[in-house]
Amino acid sequence: MSLLFKNLRIHQIFGANTDVGKTVLTSALVRASAALGKAVYYLKPVSTGPLDVADDEHVKRFAGRYRESVDAACLFRFDEPVSPHLAARLAQEQGKREVTVPSDETFANAVAHHIRQCATRMTRPSHMYVETAGGVHSPTLSGTTQLDSYRPLFLPTVLIGDSKLGGISSTISSYESLLLRGYIVDAIMLFRDEYYRNWEYLSPYFAERGVHVVTLDPPPERHADRAQDVELTDKYYEHIVPSTQQGGIFDAIQHLDNCHAQRLTELETMPRRTLDTIWWPFVQHGLVKSEADVNVLDSASGDFFSVYNGRRSSPSASPPALSAQGSPKTSLLEPQFDGSASWWTQAVGHAHPELALAAARAAGRYGHVMFPQGTHLPALKLAERLVHDGPGKGWASRAFFSDDGSTGMEVALKMALRAYTVKHGLDKAERKHLGILGLKGSYHGDTIGAMDACEEGVYTCEWHEAKGFWFDPPTVAIRKGKAAVSLPPALAELAGAADAQVDTRSLAHTYDVAARLQTPLAGTYRAYIERTLQKLKEKGGPTIAALVLEPLVMGAGGMIFVDPLFQRVLIDVVRGTYSSVQPRPASQWAGLPVIFDEVFVGLYRLGLQSTAPLLGTQPDIAVNAKILTGGLVPLAVTMASDSIFQAFMSEAKVDALLHGHSYTAYPVGCEVANATLEMIDKLAECEEWNVARHAWKVPESPDAKDTAVWSFWDPEFVNAVSHLDSVNEVMAFGTVLSIKVKDTSGGYQSHSAQKMLESIKTGLVEDKLSSAPGGAPFGINYRTLGDVAYFMLSLNTPAHTARSVEERIWSAIKN
Amino acid sequence: MSLLFKNLRIHQIFGANTDVGKTVLTSALVRASAALGKAVYYLKPVSTGPLDVADDEHVKRFAGRYRESVDAACLFRFDEPVSPHLAARLAQEQGKREVTVPSDETFANAVAHHIRQCATRMTRPSHMYVETAGGVHSPTLSGTTQLDSYRPLFLPTVLIGDSKLGGISSTISSYESLLLRGYIVDAIMLFRDEYYRNWEYLSPYFAERGVHVVTLDPPPERHADRAQDVELTDKYYEHIVPSTQQGGIFDAIQHLDNCHAQRLTELETMPRRTLDTIWWPFVQHGLVKSEADVNVLDSASGDFFSVYNGRRSSPSASPPALSAQGSPKTSLLEPQFDGSASWWTQAVGHAHPELALAAARAAGRYGHVMFPQGTHLPALKLAERLVHDGPGKGWASRAFFSDDGSTGMEVALKMALRAYTVKHGLDKAERKHLGILGLKGSYHGDTIGAMDACEEGVYTCEWHEAKGFWFDPPTVAIRKGKAAVSLPPALAELAGAADAQVDTRSLAHTYDVAARLQTPLAGTYRAYIERTLQKLKEKGGPTIAALVLEPLVMGAGGMIFVDPLFQRVLIDVVRGTYSSVQPRPASQWAGLPVIFDEVFVGLYRLGLQSTAPLLGTQPDIAVNAKILTGGLVPLAVTMASDSIFQAFMSEAKVDALLHGHSYTAYPVGCEVANATLEMIDKLAECEEWNVARHAWKVPESPDAKDTAVWSFWDPEFVNAVSHLDSVNEVMAFGTVLSIKVKDTSGGYQSHSAQKMLESIKTGLVEDKLSSAPGGAPFGINYRTLGDVAYFMLSLNTPAHTARSVEERIWSAIKN
Repeated sequence: MSLLFKNLRIHQIFGANTDVGKTVLTSALVRASAALGKAVYYLKPVSTGPLDVADDEHVKRFAGRYRESVDAACLFRFDEPVSPHLAARLAQEQGKREVTVPSDETFANAVAHHIRQCATRMTRPSHMYVETAGGVHSPTLSGTTQLDSYRPLFLPTVLIGDSKLGGISSTISSYESLLLRGYIVDAIMLFRDEYYRNWEYLSPYFAERGVHVVTLDPPPERHADRAQDVELTDKYYEHIVPSTQQGGIFDAIQHLDNCHAQRLTELETMPRRTLDTIWWPFVQHGLVKSEADVNVLDSASGDFFSVYNGRRSSPSASPPALSAQGSPKTSLLEPQFDGSASWWTQAVGHAHPELALAAARAAGRYGHVMFPQGTHLPALKLAERLVHDGPGKGWASRAFFSDDGSTGMEVALKMALRAYTVKHGLDKAERKHLGILGLKGSYHGDTIGAMDACEEGVYTCEWHEAKGFWFDPPTVAIRKGKAAVSLPPALAELAGAADAQVDTRSLAHTYDVAARLQTPLAGTYRAYIERTLQKLKEKGGPTIAALVLEPLVMGAGGMIFVDPLFQRVLIDVVRGTYSSVQPRPASQWAGLPVIFDEVFVGLYRLGLQSTAPLLGTQPDIAVNAKILTGGLVPLAVTMASDSIFQAFMSEAKVDALLHGHSYTAYPVGCEVANATLEMIDKLAECEEWNVARHAWKVPESPDAKDTAVWSFWDPEFVNAVSHLDSVNEVMAFGTVLSIKVKDTSGGYQSHSAQKMLESIKTGLVEDKLSSAPGGAPFGINYRTLGDVAYFMLSLNTPAHTARSVEERIWSAIKN
Repeated sequence: MSLLFKNLRIHQIFGANTDVGKTVLTSALVRASAALGKAVYYLKPVSTGPLDVADDEHVKRFAGRYRESVDAACLFRFDEPVSPHLAARLAQEQGKREVTVPSDETFANAVAHHIRQCATRMTRPSHMYVETAGGVHSPTLSGTTQLDSYRPLFLPTVLIGDSKLGGISSTISSYESLLLRGYIVDAIMLFRDEYYRNWEYLSPYFAERGVHVVTLDPPPERHADRAQDVELTDKYYEHIVPSTQQGGIFDAIQHLDNCHAQRLTELETMPRRTLDTIWWPFVQHGLVKSEADVNVLDSASGDFFSVYNGRRSSPSASPPALSAQGSPKTSLLEPQFDGSASWWTQAVGHAHPELALAAARAAGRYGHVMFPQGTHLPALKLAERLVHDGPGKGWASRAFFSDDGSTGMEVALKMALRAYTVKHGLDKAERKHLGILGLKGSYHGDTIGAMDACEEGVYTCEWHEAKGFWFDPPTVAIRKGKAAVSLPPALAELAGAADAQVDTRSLAHTYDVAARLQTPLAGTYRAYIERTLQKLKEKGGPTIAALVLEPLVMGAGGMIFVDPLFQRVLIDVVRGTYSSVQPRPASQWAGLPVIFDEVFVGLYRLGLQSTAPLLGTQPDIAVNAKILTGGLVPLAVTMASDSIFQAFMSEAKVDALLHGHSYTAYPVGCEVANATLEMIDKLAECEEWNVARHAWKVPESPDAKDTAVWSFWDPEFVNAVSHLDSVNEVMAFGTVLSIKVKDTSGGYQSHSAQKMLESIKTGLVEDKLSSAPGGAPFGINYRTLGDVAYFMLSLNTPAHTARSVEERIWSAIKN
């Protein structure tokens, strides 16, 4: 990730095009920095073209009398003057030498490694310039374009503008492509061409956008005579880097120094300013004791944040820390694995360029547009995709959009309550006493209505009223290498089970709902549910109007993996389809409308597009959010079957679903969701997923990928963890790993999991490169829910990253 | 707006750079279209360079034997071969001729006018190519860059790629700049350069992104001899547009035809597909009778949507309709004024490039990142701006982010309830009986908790429970040219008012709260409020724990302009600061925490950054949303004073505000909000606003801009409307115009306003150009609330647009 050193100011130099004077202007910067007494590191990671005019040679030579202060290096060199990807290929074809084309990861690691070495070597305040090849989107050796391949390093940027005819356009476009990757553009430099005068246009254009433009005289025409050319060039550099140390290029240096200083100040002050102004969600500010407790996120890439470590107190216990704070030779920014997938939202890695482009093109075409009785392509395509080919396949008829999982669930509740009211012709008084059926540990979002569909607990507020009844469900976990279903006391008694642990054949068996429907346990569940519902009726509780479930896993309630058989039997009972193994027809809801809250579990969080096929039944209403937009912007969808929709149809406006947020179905959200679904449906078919499925012994049947239990976490690692004395139980499913530690206090207030894992917060210095971008040691950002520590991957986390996270977890908890 | 004709396929041709072969490839397209029997219109809106090689001449000449089918035109011509903005300036400087540089609006109108003329003239299926000048971001005559100045016309695009060294980069960057403006890029065309082989890289690159790449042989080197050059060029065109009518260029034509046909089909099928899949917010689907009732939004720009009219049934009554439907000579897309500012969200016009860029750069730098105990620049800067320089100035200490106005209000309620509970040490049972104080007609969003802060009504669902008490407030309106405060019966009686209309001095006086605090009416309000609260206590209602107000205007409740004096007195009474004209100190809330729901009225919707200075007091909690993100993406902020924040501070996690949505403070939303606030704070100081303030006779005191009542709507127009027999009352404030029509039935179910304005839905054909982009006649998209029709502008709607909207409204209601 981003490399930032107090005493080593680094800028990467991008070009608005080839041949715009990138090397000349970089040479000028190098020479000026050296003239000001800095040690100067120049790096040209990839150089193409004849060796006698190699850029690093040029830079060093024309540093003139300051050349002793200049360290110039090149990592990959090719002599054909074409685009690097082509130069590499030509070199291979021509068999001139053994050419290994580095992968993007190897490339970024090599550049980062070089930078870190320079930082270690430096003995005085230094400047560094990393000169890229060609234009911003010229392909690097692997074929990935420059600005995507340098992105993991996230270095501040100087863009060399194009001073020729057409150069206004290429300069602005290049700038916009840089912004689309989130780069910090500190300055634009270009030649002062007196005929085209692009600088005259570009200076105010960029000033308006807060970007500094530096203009310099252009170099002389190349002279045919080599020696004369060198002399002329030398004079030119003397001219633009005058010994007075004033004017043009020195202003540029001063500006870049200021930008660097400002960035350091900004990072340094952010914790205090945050503590003074921000009210965090779900955070007890009274427990945030110091600035070091504030996680300063400077940028993000893939599964990693880039965080500021300048304020961190040194880690209390555990292995050698990443860095002795205060050492000027250590980067102030370090990678941090996003271990909770940013509250369960991430699917394809942070700052994915395709999602940024999707957001940009919808913003550019529509902005937001009024949705009621309107339509636009992003929303329509998304609705069709979700209903026909997504989690709504086979049962849903319509999509209703809102802003987050919580509002999506409020919409679902309003749908279900109305459907029940209409079907049973309830009068005004009866409507006021409707409740829902759910499971203990449920969580459907933070708005008060969604909360009322849960029991009272630490999350609920003054206005909370638990509207319904919640079963204590049997749960699934792996203990000492064995999958087991744990029965709550009432069920254990009814089952006559010697202990509360039953059905320990295998994890695959536990999730084979169809097979288990015929077991005695299914009968026990059915009897228990029926008896409970009967008692409830006799006691005169609320009229139960809907069944609301988080299928398979109750997330916020503590990563509770519910026995899927119990959920299936519960659905069958409320629908009155006791004896049938077949799903009921989707056209008409029966008994109670069934709501699936798939906000957390849906869209492949568990490796499954939807949980419905595994449960062998379908909901009447379902809600998706979080992954829906790939972890970029908020959006939720509530899908409903036609029989639910019909309950709102009439000729009277007041019968309609009178719910809607201002930004309902906003184009940016819908377009990002479309791009996400396109990507994740492809991922679900990819080889990496097959490898993981294979490791979990998923059979190769066509249905298996929609119904099987498997995980991106290594089954052997999961097994080993389940045997640890400090661990109560463990469970892995899809991207989720949940570890319940032994703790007598338990509950939401417990800090046991938090404590056990403390050491993984900071990076481990090792000899090998880490799997973080740039290869630096990384810490892990993780969340706990009381005695449960959980970790979550994206859908495209590389296997080697998952393995290193496992290693870190293992080393923290094995003792 | 976008021009789309069934039988005239139009593409605009953009270049990845200057000198990439734009004219050559366009000539090939023109010739191939003509060869296929089409009439071909070629338009070069701006041409620079020597006249003897003018592009339109070139295109026509090298259409060869098909030239009779080609109509080539140029609108603005300059002979200096430099960027158009410079060519225009040089021509002016050299005094060669009278040069008028067209504004962006004039330019777009001229191009659109030419296109419409061609469509009218055409006698057979035709193709049209509009060739831009230079690269995508080359400045046009006014200095605005190409892709921004053509954006109002939103034509489908062919991008001519760059086949030279560096051309991969400029092609991809140009493509991304096009996407940032939302353009539909149907194809990329470039020369097959055999040395640099850019096409080899670009074809798969764009194929992955769903864009078709067409490659053609490059033209011969230019020959020194003019005649030979012409001959060679002629041969070249014969070669790439072969008489076989097969291969390269004809595949391109086929592809562009397919894109056009697909676009038509898409627009044609969208209404049906929408009716089959989408569940709209706040829409009774039973009342949507036909496909013609679906508003198909193809794109948007400024204050206008571009909508499909191909399915529209011809307007029943009223003046000559925009177009005889089915005429192949009429554009299938037409402008439609966004009369509700897309549910009150728009502030700076749709698809503003600065907001699209802000969204893109935050997406590219962070994606979304975990917020609890974290920080990032977009969120921190936004919080600081809101708290210190925004609506929180002078009282707020912290910002809490959520996703929409409704969730923002739920957060506000949780804050207030807790603050009250802690201060009064309520036990568990007491907490359950807390209610709020509000006004009849309040609306705070659609989630159930926010609804519980309002009375029962058509919007509320089965779970609704009205938790509190709501006063029937006096209201402000203009009737027959006079501002008047209308008292509800109970108040009128108490005031001993002869009729319910009082205090009719002037609108300015009505909003001068400080002056009115000393009037007898203030005393009446105070007595009434105190007496009511006393009675409430005696009757044993809920414990009132907070005062919740939409200051000045209750929007969704029916654009009810509440007498500001009543709100101020109410606040003073609940705080126990009866006699004081001074605002109380912000540090500690007194009596009841006061919540301002500024979701609709805040951030200059009423021309005021916040309503607090006008009311002369400050809230303890306030919510902003809607305009906050300039009308692009959802985001809400709940600000609180320090004394509210302190109620949640402890050493126990469970005491924290345990509320948070997955995407809390997501960087894209925060960055867009920062860009918006930057823009709108500037707008508030601009000349156009001063002109409007002047028209409403706002005094030039330094405070006036924070406290005065004024509007972007013309005071004379408002006055005239107020005198109409069909109009009950009217009110204008800031961007809002509200017209209550005479209607005996009234209420939310009334369709009277809807009916009266029916005719403004479609455009009026007139001789003059309209103020819509491209100058086509425009319809108006508006929303009504029962008997209230309202219209809303953005903060930068040009005055002439506002005037034409007024004209349309006037002509509809004057009878």
